[in-house]
Amino acid sequence: MIIIMAENASEEKIKAVEKQLAEYGFKTHPIRGESKTVIGAIGDKGHLSINRLLAMDGVENVVPIMRPYKLAGKEIKKAPSIIDSGGVKTGDNMNITVFAGPYIAENEEMLDIAASCVSEYGGGILTGGVFNQGPSPYGFESLGIKGLTFLKAAGKKYNIPVCTEIPDTSDVETVAEYCDVIQIGARNMQNYSLLSEAGKTDRTVILKRGLSASVEEWLMAAEYIMKEGNSKVILCERGIRTFETATRSTLDISAIPVVKSLSHLPVIAEPGRAAGNFKYVGAMSKAALAAGADGLMLEIHPEPNKAHSNGERALKPKTFTALMRELKAVASAVGREI
Amino acid sequence: MIIIMAENASEEKIKAVEKQLAEYGFKTHPIRGESKTVIGAIGDKGHLSINRLLAMDGVENVVPIMRPYKLAGKEIKKAPSIIDSGGVKTGDNMNITVFAGPYIAENEEMLDIAASCVSEYGGGILTGGVFNQGPSPYGFESLGIKGLTFLKAAGKKYNIPVCTEIPDTSDVETVAEYCDVIQIGARNMQNYSLLSEAGKTDRTVILKRGLSASVEEWLMAAEYIMKEGNSKVILCERGIRTFETATRSTLDISAIPVVKSLSHLPVIAEPGRAAGNFKYVGAMSKAALAAGADGLMLEIHPEPNKAHSNGERALKPKTFTALMRELKAVASAVGREI
Amino acid sequence: MIIIMAENASEEKIKAVEKQLAEYGFKTHPIRGESKTVIGAIGDKGHLSINRLLAMDGVENVVPIMRPYKLAGKEIKKAPSIIDSGGVKTGDNMNITVFAGPYIAENEEMLDIAASCVSEYGGGILTGGVFNQGPSPYGFESLGIKGLTFLKAAGKKYNIPVCTEIPDTSDVETVAEYCDVIQIGARNMQNYSLLSEAGKTDRTVILKRGLSASVEEWLMAAEYIMKEGNSKVILCERGIRTFETATRSTLDISAIPVVKSLSHLPVIAEPGRAAGNFKYVGAMSKAALAAGADGLMLEIHPEPNKAHSNGERALKPKTFTALMRELKAVASAVGREI
Amino acid sequence: MIIIMAENASEEKIKAVEKQLAEYGFKTHPIRGESKTVIGAIGDKGHLSINRLLAMDGVENVVPIMRPYKLAGKEIKKAPSIIDSGGVKTGDNMNITVFAGPYIAENEEMLDIAASCVSEYGGGILTGGVFNQGPSPYGFESLGIKGLTFLKAAGKKYNIPVCTEIPDTSDVETVAEYCDVIQIGARNMQNYSLLSEAGKTDRTVILKRGLSASVEEWLMAAEYIMKEGNSKVILCERGIRTFETATRSTLDISAIPVVKSLSHLPVIAEPGRAAGNFKYVGAMSKAALAAGADGLMLEIHPEPNKAHSNGERALKPKTFTALMRELKAVASAVGREI
Repeated sequence: MIIIMAENASEEKIKAVEKQLAEYGFKTHPIRGESKTVIGAIGDKGHLSINRLLAMDGVENVVPIMRPYKLAGKEIKKAPSIIDSGGVKTGDNMNITVFAGPYIAENEEMLDIAASCVSEYGGGILTGGVFNQGPSPYGFESLGIKGLTFLKAAGKKYNIPVCTEIPDTSDVETVAEYCDVIQIGARNMQNYSLLSEAGKTDRTVILKRGLSASVEEWLMAAEYIMKEGNSKVILCERGIRTFETATRSTLDISAIPVVKSLSHLPVIAEPGRAAGNFKYVGAMSKAALAAGADGLMLEIHPEPNKAHSNGERALKPKTFTALMRELKAVASAVGREI
Repeated sequence: MIIIMAENASEEKIKAVEKQLAEYGFKTHPIRGESKTVIGAIGDKGHLSINRLLAMDGVENVVPIMRPYKLAGKEIKKAPSIIDSGGVKTGDNMNITVFAGPYIAENEEMLDIAASCVSEYGGGILTGGVFNQGPSPYGFESLGIKGLTFLKAAGKKYNIPVCTEIPDTSDVETVAEYCDVIQIGARNMQNYSLLSEAGKTDRTVILKRGLSASVEEWLMAAEYIMKEGNSKVILCERGIRTFETATRSTLDISAIPVVKSLSHLPVIAEPGRAAGNFKYVGAMSKAALAAGADGLMLEIHPEPNKAHSNGERALKPKTFTALMRELKAVASAVGREI
Repeated sequence: MIIIMAENASEEKIKAVEKQLAEYGFKTHPIRGESKTVIGAIGDKGHLSINRLLAMDGVENVVPIMRPYKLAGKEIKKAPSIIDSGGVKTGDNMNITVFAGPYIAENEEMLDIAASCVSEYGGGILTGGVFNQGPSPYGFESLGIKGLTFLKAAGKKYNIPVCTEIPDTSDVETVAEYCDVIQIGARNMQNYSLLSEAGKTDRTVILKRGLSASVEEWLMAAEYIMKEGNSKVILCERGIRTFETATRSTLDISAIPVVKSLSHLPVIAEPGRAAGNFKYVGAMSKAALAAGADGLMLEIHPEPNKAHSNGERALKPKTFTALMRELKAVASAVGREI
Repeated sequence: MIIIMAENASEEKIKAVEKQLAEYGFKTHPIRGESKTVIGAIGDKGHLSINRLLAMDGVENVVPIMRPYKLAGKEIKKAPSIIDSGGVKTGDNMNITVFAGPYIAENEEMLDIAASCVSEYGGGILTGGVFNQGPSPYGFESLGIKGLTFLKAAGKKYNIPVCTEIPDTSDVETVAEYCDVIQIGARNMQNYSLLSEAGKTDRTVILKRGLSASVEEWLMAAEYIMKEGNSKVILCERGIRTFETATRSTLDISAIPVVKSLSHLPVIAEPGRAAGNFKYVGAMSKAALAAGADGLMLEIHPEPNKAHSNGERALKPKTFTALMRELKAVASAVGREI
């Protein structure tokens, strides 16, 4: 780590910082410029000491050299992680994994329709929300446990793995029993209790990026899961919050190559939730694959204008099927298969 | 609610939307302009139908007229809510409530020092973090339950109410037992399970604004708590995430008068967490009071450069005491007392 | 336009707004809900009256129905505009136009190398900065007029059109004399004098999106150019400013389909300037094409680590050539040609 | 400057960077950690070389140590700059300078009314827009030169200095002839030609912060003006663009103490343009003064609902006068005078 001292910081203040660094176990290497001194400190074992140093007199800034995540980073593991979810492989630089289903599983039939769509394409995973998760307390009552049984049944019938979101630590165990993949929503990306619980299961965890989470914070959240022993983490970019209101949020497609350069974990994209409008799902799905995404998460609803929630961004089964055909060409153009 | 039809939408599509609105229980009032038709719909009882309408052919946009929150809004209750927390009143347009203490309660002595500082000024509340809450899984291990007993003891000794953050639904009951005020952190602002649990207690709940939460979403989160029967909610502005990196986040001071115009709930500000640097805490505390805040949340640490976390933004006891004196003048200039 | 009156606004205030609307030439259609009244106003000929109405007592909000741009919008012209720049066509839903060259044209040779790279692919346009444009006043002195002659000569030698950025109104005429395409930088997107001057030429104008410009503001800036009689405008998405610092700015790829749905103008993307790192240029170029971009703007430098400016995001000639090959496959997957 | 080499960068790459640094005139100090090497480089005379180094193989990041601005920074001049504008002093840590007048000067009378309001308080400066500046090309035609004569006359009558915005380099000379203070709008903050022209005059220049400009970029823009010889620069915070839509933009009040810590230049705030609603102007004006602003910029309009532009954020003369009275108390609470 590098400590940048303020313009003309006194020798006494420089010494005090060096002394403090020595107490924290660092070796120090001061470099004296014309008006500023910087101190190189070797031995950084964590980020704990940065803030303390910032609190010292005469310190202008502290620059970490090592990244704060270890298990999620490429420094420890260079080869891409291939995550197996009930037989479906994600992250092998070949397969594109499509996670699809209704945002809210309103009934059994709807899951059946979605599962049928998904199963037409090899390597798909059925999704469906069964717990309440909307920003309004006056929303539709979800199916709960009954939804989990429907989800599992649909997966079994079509022989595809299933996935749902876990809203709370108390639901982790139950969800893990029914599902091959458990999903942590964007709003819970820094719910550390939930991350830790998910890390105690042996299920694949889809970790959605928080609306205002930096890539570094996202990888730190993955670290929370992995630290508990579960390294089956798939990152999902679902849009960040920006000033632009023409779309619901801004799908940060550049996060895909950025994550690929920093981490060995697979990364998928969810264009519908980001755009907030089914019209843009096709273009953005193609863009995500072209940028190197390992998969997509898509919403399917048989009758979007009757959806309990967010119908405006769901694809009708026919549209989903047509999109899958178009995506094959794009996947193939970047050396992948769908 | 107003439905804006696309340019030259066919009569058939307009009729279909009107029919759907009637099914949802709305009375419709179409207004035909030169190239666009808009449909006024009376009877909006929630926001459920907006997204469904957006999914219909020919619909360009849907504009809600009623705000999505009820209990938190001024439409139901015009007079400001005065929240009593163990005898301290917040929101009466006179008292400024200062919540202060260490970010992480590292030991008993530190809480004693902070409580002593706080008790010098009438109407203060002691805070102190006792559960892990940082973005790194490699952080300092917190005191947990032991911390709660220390906190309660310090409050008792100095006769001031106490407050701590609850990280998870499973901790709500225990924290409510020890504390007068429970706090929901910015990262959990849309952890709906946690909001509901907090709403089942009779404790004051400080609801921090999420880093990328709009004022409307923040009030919707308050609604989640209030819907469970607990209307003792204090909103806390602690900075939003923007592109600017000179401060850790951007304290949105304009949110204070905005909240005051939309809601009857009290609103306080937390300048240290937003700025991320003790240097700016004084100026920003004054600004928040001048803008009409009902209180402040401040961090105190006896030795910031030895803090387990975030020492760079904590005030030393002396600095805290000096700031309180300066704040008296500003409070008085806007007709308030500290 | 729709005027939303505040909760329980008095009859008197509603009447005053109706009277004002009548004075502005609108026909009014009040719709009375349980607690709020909204007034539909037919005849909106511009956005001038919105702010005035917002200043009236009892008005809560004003919602425009018509978009503020006319010439740039699809309401007037549905078919995509095909822009001819010295023989190269952009916007025909088939050709991908590649604009490429050095960020700063440092010398004649560099332009020759870039022109040679570009000319290998049909339909390319040579770019090169010749005026100072950096955020530091201590930057490298640009070539100025001499650079324009070099640019023109390189274009002539390789028989490709040329393009450069105009920093100031006083340079428009000169640049238009030398170049087939003139470019307005992101920092000048709302420099209205410059937009108007560019609108008085007959050259293709590349209008880059401002770092914090909404899509609507971007189209309004195009309107400024088009209103002067020049409808040869190509929009260029070059990244918006967000909180994420892993990339220099965030390439808003969703803006591509959004613009396509709102405007008949072609839209291209500039991944290098957005990402700020050559490593991400390949993935983001593919993503932009997959999302429907009509072209790309890329930086080429023979020796990036000797560049006077921004070498970190420039492609070496070899890398550029290899990327062009990869892009052919992606273009073809979405039915386009490069 | 510090060069951070990538994990396990080869000795050869490290040597190449050191060699390059030597060529640029730096002395190098490599520090070898367990897995990463960092190179301290002494002699940084500008920011030119950072990007080139970033383009080199094996370089992960480059951290500048010196700030990129010189004349605007505190490193050269520690004492606050006191700017004299036609006899009114700004930046002396005592006077609060109020700039006020109509956003657009529609006629002579309106300027007279505003000047009368301003002159009641010592140390005020009359403002009024006389050139077109709105984001729509269909806006109201401004008064132009005639407006300048009206402005000058009103200033003379009430014996107060006057100020207007310059939209284009070609107007600088004329405006400087009529006005004591010339203003560069947020949208032109990085219009470098305009900055340079303003720097060639001897008038006070108000430099508004761009909507997405970092504090560092803002100070770099000031540097452009100062480099030409004009050090009479007043910075004006007028709101940054964030995701929040409850206000037009977010007044970044923390920028006030941040600028004070980095620069000797005075800084004022413009709450109306940021909030976009007259309702919030009072609270935000108080907040700005409490945070240490050296002045305010406010809009006055005799009949906001008849304003040609932006009436929704203008204060009526009576409201302005009442606010001035309230601000006196706040100014006094922070040891200032208005």
